[in-house]
Amino acid sequence: MLNDKEKQELRLRLRKISGQINGIDKMIDEGRYCVDVLQQLTAARAAMNQVSLIILESHTKSCVVNAIKEDRADDAIGELIEVVRKFSK
Amino acid sequence: MLNDKEKQELRLRLRKISGQINGIDKMIDEGRYCVDVLQQLTAARAAMNQVSLIILESHTKSCVVNAIKEDRADDAIGELIEVVRKFSK
Amino acid sequence: MLNDKEKQELRLRLRKISGQINGIDKMIDEGRYCVDVLQQLTAARAAMNQVSLIILESHTKSCVVNAIKEDRADDAIGELIEVVRKFSK
Amino acid sequence: MLNDKEKQELRLRLRKISGQINGIDKMIDEGRYCVDVLQQLTAARAAMNQVSLIILESHTKSCVVNAIKEDRADDAIGELIEVVRKFSK
Repeated sequence: MLNDKEKQELRLRLRKISGQINGIDKMIDEGRYCVDVLQQLTAARAAMNQVSLIILESHTKSCVVNAIKEDRADDAIGELIEVVRKFSK
Repeated sequence: MLNDKEKQELRLRLRKISGQINGIDKMIDEGRYCVDVLQQLTAARAAMNQVSLIILESHTKSCVVNAIKEDRADDAIGELIEVVRKFSK
Repeated sequence: MLNDKEKQELRLRLRKISGQINGIDKMIDEGRYCVDVLQQLTAARAAMNQVSLIILESHTKSCVVNAIKEDRADDAIGELIEVVRKFSK
Repeated sequence: MLNDKEKQELRLRLRKISGQINGIDKMIDEGRYCVDVLQQLTAARAAMNQVSLIILESHTKSCVVNAIKEDRADDAIGELIEVVRKFSK
């Protein structure tokens, strides 16, 4: 579970990403050079990956650690690896 | 250069992504399960990759083809590969 | 730590990947069509990612679980996330 | 089509990757620390991506440019984008 400080940081990051997406929308509307648009998309994606990694770390530190302490390690780790598999594609 | 139909399609996709980002923000605010949030992030990223590939294809079909016809192939292709390199990370 | 069965399976996979790499080397030597070579490279990379995920899962199930039981969770998870960060690039 | 110099460079890179794969096989056999093995896998994958990008650039500069000059641009670029799509996963 995310704590309040993590939530606040993540929501701030998401609002920045939302701003980046709107900026890309405007670039397309204005007919800006494709390579510049692609660079902004790559930057927004990197920001999203960062959000995913923060959540992944927090999830591992709380939910997975609890599962291990309660002897539900295999399910929790199986689920974690499945998330990493999809994330790494 | 993107034509009007491409612009319209891409802007529609970006608005959907913007909606996905807002949905993720809400999920975090509501304390939803981390693994569900991560799946939504992965889905939003896949949607962004699709936008990048559409722009990349359009860029190659217009700007790169023109550059080749005007004997500026090497610069245009070098720039294209640089974009693919960053995109594929 | 990997057990003997995991080691055996991983080494078999690595030998197959080694064979794929040699096959790609031969394709290049024979002047085969670039797109076919690129597809083989993508296949070999997918096989390597699979090896990484198997090791990551085993590592989490053994080393990370032990670290958590011995109250060294934070270091072990920090290291794990760092590996995922690099792997997901 | 790759020229002789490109072939030579790529084959040298592939032989190095083959050596990296064999090194990883040996690390697993010797029971080396999983995180170190994962780092070597990530390094080998980066080397393979570099090979893919070199081939992609050469392919674009030769096959795609020829296709464009012969008015077969759309097929060649469609194929190129398909390769990039798979490569970027």
